[in-house]
Amino acid sequence: MKKYTNIYDIDNIPEMIQEAIQLKEKPFAYKNLGTNKTLVMLFFNASLRTRLSTEKAAKNLGMEVMVLNVNDAWDLEFEDGTIMNFNTSEHVKEAAQVISQYSNIIAVRAFPSLIDKEKDASELILNSFIKYATVPIVNMESATMHPLQSLADAITIEELKMTKKPKVVLSWAPHPKALPQAVANSFVAMMKNIDVDFSITHPKGYELNPEITMNVSIHYNQKEALKDADFVYTKNWSSYTDYGKVISEDIDWMMTKDKLNGAKFMHCLPVRRNVVVEDAVLDSEASVVIQQANNRTYAAQIVLKKILENL
Amino acid sequence: MKKYTNIYDIDNIPEMIQEAIQLKEKPFAYKNLGTNKTLVMLFFNASLRTRLSTEKAAKNLGMEVMVLNVNDAWDLEFEDGTIMNFNTSEHVKEAAQVISQYSNIIAVRAFPSLIDKEKDASELILNSFIKYATVPIVNMESATMHPLQSLADAITIEELKMTKKPKVVLSWAPHPKALPQAVANSFVAMMKNIDVDFSITHPKGYELNPEITMNVSIHYNQKEALKDADFVYTKNWSSYTDYGKVISEDIDWMMTKDKLNGAKFMHCLPVRRNVVVEDAVLDSEASVVIQQANNRTYAAQIVLKKILENL
Amino acid sequence: MKKYTNIYDIDNIPEMIQEAIQLKEKPFAYKNLGTNKTLVMLFFNASLRTRLSTEKAAKNLGMEVMVLNVNDAWDLEFEDGTIMNFNTSEHVKEAAQVISQYSNIIAVRAFPSLIDKEKDASELILNSFIKYATVPIVNMESATMHPLQSLADAITIEELKMTKKPKVVLSWAPHPKALPQAVANSFVAMMKNIDVDFSITHPKGYELNPEITMNVSIHYNQKEALKDADFVYTKNWSSYTDYGKVISEDIDWMMTKDKLNGAKFMHCLPVRRNVVVEDAVLDSEASVVIQQANNRTYAAQIVLKKILENL
Repeated sequence: MKKYTNIYDIDNIPEMIQEAIQLKEKPFAYKNLGTNKTLVMLFFNASLRTRLSTEKAAKNLGMEVMVLNVNDAWDLEFEDGTIMNFNTSEHVKEAAQVISQYSNIIAVRAFPSLIDKEKDASELILNSFIKYATVPIVNMESATMHPLQSLADAITIEELKMTKKPKVVLSWAPHPKALPQAVANSFVAMMKNIDVDFSITHPKGYELNPEITMNVSIHYNQKEALKDADFVYTKNWSSYTDYGKVISEDIDWMMTKDKLNGAKFMHCLPVRRNVVVEDAVLDSEASVVIQQANNRTYAAQIVLKKILENL
Repeated sequence: MKKYTNIYDIDNIPEMIQEAIQLKEKPFAYKNLGTNKTLVMLFFNASLRTRLSTEKAAKNLGMEVMVLNVNDAWDLEFEDGTIMNFNTSEHVKEAAQVISQYSNIIAVRAFPSLIDKEKDASELILNSFIKYATVPIVNMESATMHPLQSLADAITIEELKMTKKPKVVLSWAPHPKALPQAVANSFVAMMKNIDVDFSITHPKGYELNPEITMNVSIHYNQKEALKDADFVYTKNWSSYTDYGKVISEDIDWMMTKDKLNGAKFMHCLPVRRNVVVEDAVLDSEASVVIQQANNRTYAAQIVLKKILENL
Repeated sequence: MKKYTNIYDIDNIPEMIQEAIQLKEKPFAYKNLGTNKTLVMLFFNASLRTRLSTEKAAKNLGMEVMVLNVNDAWDLEFEDGTIMNFNTSEHVKEAAQVISQYSNIIAVRAFPSLIDKEKDASELILNSFIKYATVPIVNMESATMHPLQSLADAITIEELKMTKKPKVVLSWAPHPKALPQAVANSFVAMMKNIDVDFSITHPKGYELNPEITMNVSIHYNQKEALKDADFVYTKNWSSYTDYGKVISEDIDWMMTKDKLNGAKFMHCLPVRRNVVVEDAVLDSEASVVIQQANNRTYAAQIVLKKILENL
């Protein structure tokens, strides 16, 4: 594996999932693999789970980890040909090449603006690091994708599924702030690549990027969509059409125990209680969000392991 | 030992002190104990000594350490049943369970508001982590207690005492800002549990929580209180009665070399020179604050060692 | 080696450079040297290269590293005899002694005010740590010096020089913000101590501290100065005479491929493209800035190695 910037960097997804489940059994079995290898984690945005689980994963493999909140340094320039006499102090061309020399793998978190659709779609920050770094890049959530999350999600479904081909529904939920589509996008892409019966439900106007949802059935009637579901992934995202806007906060879309009707409740966290989902769900056996979060470590660890083996 | 949230979590305080002093002799003797074990340190508030000494202690035991300034992530919710459509992005129920999966021990620093007495007394943040985390919790200073500090204080007194039962006085000092009662509270509790002749002196209105100072003699006349003292712990705290208020900045309560009259000067640091204590004290042999700070490492290390042995 | 606060702490500079080049070949050869040794890195100012390369260097030697952004703790006091009843919470006397107990080496980054010339010249922060710490101090860029950078610069020149005594020119460049003289000062000092033909070119009014540039030829005509140069170190600094002021932003002083005329382009980074230097230089073979940044690791590592060997 040469990088992990989206789920398509995985050759064989089912195999990857099985190997992650094996790592979870013996997380320290490959502790020599990372000896004298360094992971640099660059954060342009806040992080709790991603920060801790990815750092833990690297240390489980014996790697050294250096964490840098980029905003503690200075603003980077990403445009070509700029006369840099304003806010930005260093071009990513230099930064990415330089950091590559201090590391063996660079992990990057850089959220979208949710203002400029085209720029977000271009994945300027992530792609600049892919372009200029001389070491493998791992995506810790970019403008449009969160592939470590969706790998953890797939591991969780594999661990918990009771039937060969479970029914999985991605159900939009209300939220007071505009959130990225990244988690939803990567989840959709992942579900299309594992053996599940997958569909999406959301209010009109919340259609995700049609290139990503192509061939996936979309329902505007949540109740019908959730019927006989085994797993319900609940998640808010802001509008893709009316880009970055909160066009509905309709509390009727909040996930409830009634609606779940026995299905497992999934969410990437952080989750706003009694807005996205009611307490009764999160505090019940139906919720598998803690297990999902735990699998973040093994998703990151299998990715780092594959990259280390290929260095 | 299953946690260290206040000094009552220690079974046998004198034994603990002796073991800490032995660790100080050979700090790396138990370096295998922490292999493949991770300490996550969560800071809701600023730290210098606690941060560095606790991290050092964990590394002396061979642990991995991950440090997270919680404010670099997002605001946590601590109340039950809230509709989280305002500032908080994640409930401590999820956060504590999730972080537990990435760690073997969680250390938490969370200061009081100094506004809401009842809420501070409830130790909402610390107790939420105790309640929801699935790994042992270490208190790196909470709303009302600083048990790692008072363990270091007790170690220092044990190292330096010249008589079997030294006279120890806790003497209030002026300070321009409202400070927590935590250090004073834990020091009082600790002194009640080791073999010292202990008393407190402060201006009227600065009485600490009477449940904590029960059976301790309190003097409003500093001069009389300090007579024949062996150790004088000088410390500011804001009023407990007129909760969180600075009701006096009376410079006459500043500690001086004259007042000490040969006693050892103790303080937890950081200390404001020529406000809490005059230069002449800190720059003399009477001051043992640097030794106290050094003992923070061994206080933390014996606590982590006991917890690791019990995992 | 007992500290590294300026380049004069190196006994034999050419030997030091050769040893750094050898370390670069086998960076992990001395990994046992740092066992149970801790580097504390204290940042009063932002850092990217210095942070990552120094941390990497320490870890290459097997050291533990603890990084503290001092501003995440509280304001330190540096003046003697102050009545500390205002902003500062802790005196460097205590802080430096305390941190020394948690570490074997302390590295400090503290920039100048660029307002108070005398105070900056006194190196108050760095010298306070030298004075009060009880462990060796490494300068990660102080008010007037950046000796880790100039050591990396000297290593780079040694690696790349095609003649025994190459011609090296330090050429001032425009910049929108007032920058320290530290990099330029240390570069000048270093060039005076290795076997190069060295000169400086800058607009009138940008003369550096004459004690530092003594015996170095200074040219106000950039074109003449650059003639037949092998290495051109381009760097902005604010005025030393009209202290801390930007007295010219003359774009004619920007470095171009034409001006370089085959010479190698050096810069410490971060560099503002098309202000300090045109894209055509940085994107060409003439630029050696990435190699310079890489050598920051080995400059720091040889310094830490020498200090560890002397502990």
